[in-house]
Amino acid sequence: MLARRFLSSASSPLAPTIRQLLLSPPPPPAACVAVNGWVKSIRRQKKVAFAVISDGSSDAGLQAVFTDINLAKNLTNGASVRLQGTLADSPGAGQEKELKVSEVEVLGECDPERYPMQKQALTVEYLRDHCHLRARTREIGAMLRLRDSTTRAIHGYFEDNGFIHVHTPIITSNDCEGAGETFRIAPSSSDASTSDAKPSEYFNHPAYLTVSSQLHLEAVASAISRVYTLSPCFRAERSQTSRHLAEFWMLEAEWAFTSSLTELCDVVEHAIRHVLRTHAASPDMDALWKQHPPATSEAKRAELQSYADAPQPWTRLTYTDAVDVLAAHHAQTPGGAFVFPPAWGSSLQSEHERWLADTYVRGPVFVTDYPAVLKPFYMRLNDSDGGGKERQTVACFDLLVPGMGELVGGSLREERTGLLEAALERHGLDKADYAWYLDLRRYGGAPHGGFGLGFERLISWMSGIESVRECIAMPRWAGRMLL
Amino acid sequence: MLARRFLSSASSPLAPTIRQLLLSPPPPPAACVAVNGWVKSIRRQKKVAFAVISDGSSDAGLQAVFTDINLAKNLTNGASVRLQGTLADSPGAGQEKELKVSEVEVLGECDPERYPMQKQALTVEYLRDHCHLRARTREIGAMLRLRDSTTRAIHGYFEDNGFIHVHTPIITSNDCEGAGETFRIAPSSSDASTSDAKPSEYFNHPAYLTVSSQLHLEAVASAISRVYTLSPCFRAERSQTSRHLAEFWMLEAEWAFTSSLTELCDVVEHAIRHVLRTHAASPDMDALWKQHPPATSEAKRAELQSYADAPQPWTRLTYTDAVDVLAAHHAQTPGGAFVFPPAWGSSLQSEHERWLADTYVRGPVFVTDYPAVLKPFYMRLNDSDGGGKERQTVACFDLLVPGMGELVGGSLREERTGLLEAALERHGLDKADYAWYLDLRRYGGAPHGGFGLGFERLISWMSGIESVRECIAMPRWAGRMLL
Repeated sequence: MLARRFLSSASSPLAPTIRQLLLSPPPPPAACVAVNGWVKSIRRQKKVAFAVISDGSSDAGLQAVFTDINLAKNLTNGASVRLQGTLADSPGAGQEKELKVSEVEVLGECDPERYPMQKQALTVEYLRDHCHLRARTREIGAMLRLRDSTTRAIHGYFEDNGFIHVHTPIITSNDCEGAGETFRIAPSSSDASTSDAKPSEYFNHPAYLTVSSQLHLEAVASAISRVYTLSPCFRAERSQTSRHLAEFWMLEAEWAFTSSLTELCDVVEHAIRHVLRTHAASPDMDALWKQHPPATSEAKRAELQSYADAPQPWTRLTYTDAVDVLAAHHAQTPGGAFVFPPAWGSSLQSEHERWLADTYVRGPVFVTDYPAVLKPFYMRLNDSDGGGKERQTVACFDLLVPGMGELVGGSLREERTGLLEAALERHGLDKADYAWYLDLRRYGGAPHGGFGLGFERLISWMSGIESVRECIAMPRWAGRMLL
Repeated sequence: MLARRFLSSASSPLAPTIRQLLLSPPPPPAACVAVNGWVKSIRRQKKVAFAVISDGSSDAGLQAVFTDINLAKNLTNGASVRLQGTLADSPGAGQEKELKVSEVEVLGECDPERYPMQKQALTVEYLRDHCHLRARTREIGAMLRLRDSTTRAIHGYFEDNGFIHVHTPIITSNDCEGAGETFRIAPSSSDASTSDAKPSEYFNHPAYLTVSSQLHLEAVASAISRVYTLSPCFRAERSQTSRHLAEFWMLEAEWAFTSSLTELCDVVEHAIRHVLRTHAASPDMDALWKQHPPATSEAKRAELQSYADAPQPWTRLTYTDAVDVLAAHHAQTPGGAFVFPPAWGSSLQSEHERWLADTYVRGPVFVTDYPAVLKPFYMRLNDSDGGGKERQTVACFDLLVPGMGELVGGSLREERTGLLEAALERHGLDKADYAWYLDLRRYGGAPHGGFGLGFERLISWMSGIESVRECIAMPRWAGRMLL
């Protein structure tokens, strides 16, 4: 990995970043290096000054030492600078190398009186109001690098397992079963010209922003048997929770030739373990967990790694068994353990999901085989378990993780045309709208399944960042969209 | 690369794909392997039958041999099957290995009478009408794998060069300078309820689909100095050309601490050379070029590789020089060479761009330093070249490539607050709307630049696919959006 990086850096048109510089074989002792970056902090003593310079390539930045303190006199927090000097071993704690500065050029000044990103702690709300500048904070910078490295780990996992990445459509005619939480689109000229016109249909029929790439992936997976996408999805929901965004990214995978819910769960578990393992020594995760009290943060990081390294598969539990343990716990607790009494046939509430992962399992848990009535039309009906029609279940799962609740959902998809048509009818959907979806089964259909994972939730879970609004560069939610 | 694949496949929950199987070390001679896929073709002889089975993991598929022809009797084109047998060296031309089949299971039948994807050549228009099934054709399958491998090559290049991938917003308040070719969005419930209401503003102000991630990337690049995105972009244009889509993907990169147009062009050139080199032996590119007559296709592929391997940098030419050579050629040609006479101060037309790349340079060419009046407000004004205000140019480039025309556009961005404010005014834009954009300069601004590359155009150029509508899984253009 590193070898490759150095090789191609050699022919790169770009000068090394601070991260590349610190990872490179050391330059000859007297060799002059140039470093570009922003001043993160500055400390002036009588005969020497120190500054931390960051170009965003790593959490650490580079310590710059000014033995001629005049060189540092124009430096302020936030200013962009170009420094020249020599790299030397650092006697100080906290860094291996430092830059002994011989030349300074201020490229862009930053008035410390007016700079909106002051050194003192800024509130989450203040930073949301300044989202064009908030990548300059340590937390958001680390989160952005964590998104990048997590994305690369995901791409690596799916490539290694024979999956093809597909760019699925964002604009779609599918309105998510008419649930009404979609965004509808129109060319801006049409509603600008007249105030009372319906949006003219640029595509000749209504167009929405996608809420999931699943159905599109299923179409491609009927030809390229393993596909996935990391794609933006949109929900116009009004709920203001720490786990919901109007625009979010979802990892969705779909593959043919599987009839096994166990295999689906295995792939999800392997993929997440892979991501966690590649981040076992992530300085960006360190930086983010350091926002919490040390006792909590160390325990939490160790806990995450223990999920990655657990010798046994993560716990799997049917919905029916989950309701049993929830109901027993509820009954045993004086006054009841939950606001919503657990009952077969009702959705699991957040409080139920959290208790299962946080307390009962104390780790990730796949809850499988939910009642058909609770789930979308496309999930594959299980063979009767003797409970009769009222107890019909589908071959699906939700992955619940401690501190978060639902992180992934998936299922086998109904590939039997007759059963799928019956399910469409049961859900009050128009068969004509799904003719293409039925075609996928009619012509060489194969048993298949897949899942969706909320990318911002994964970042939140891995980093301890409380709200998904801080898990994306420029968050959008009800009432809120800057830039 | 392969070593890594085998290593992790060993612990993969999934059985190997056909591609993985053929790349793996051969199994012991008598070992039984199972293969899942779709029947691509079937050839029955008296005592033996042959079928090509594809699971979409590679262009080639796998030849299956049935010495018991009864086993093949239920196979039809398009059916999904599970075959078991032993892998053996193939005596036939065209493949190294074949599967001697001992067991057949038809997973999903495909009625040859009704199957919309018949073996005979289907028109491009027919396939567009069946876009849920068209990934089953050899061309679209190869194109989807080419998108995947090109995406990975791009991610590899930018990772190696210290860039962080950022998911930039899709929904934005930026309406692209009011050009009117944006899509506007509203929650679907608002315009469904009343036909004469303006779309209620879910975000409290108008929201559009992004036409470019550049401004957002600039914000992040003022903290993380090298960023890029491969992101969907949207234009509600009515033009019906082979190079335009309403929804397309754009590679955009932005980096700080550059004042050099040469460096911008160098990065673009290196990135594209890298992509071409990683595809020098791509079977998917082979399959796609094979759609053309052999003479053309071999010459074209060789030509593409020659651009990747050219010892000299690609030609760079200022706009002013380009207009001079265009005008000279126009004047020298009896009756004129072009429909639009070339003139300084006018945009280069497609015919001009094509002639420059196809005929004059016979290769990729960067045309740089266009007149300021032709370009957006954010491009960096060049120092006066003595031509006075009328001849003011900006530090920008378009990369023109043979057979295509414009593939990439980029520029240095105006980082000088005063000049940027003047440019906003000149373009009739409201300074208040760009207060955040000015902030990026006000507080530690750094010289910076970037570019945007149309991903479908790149795929079209690399593969010889004529229209970008065949360069994406499910294309959207004016009047057209299926699924």
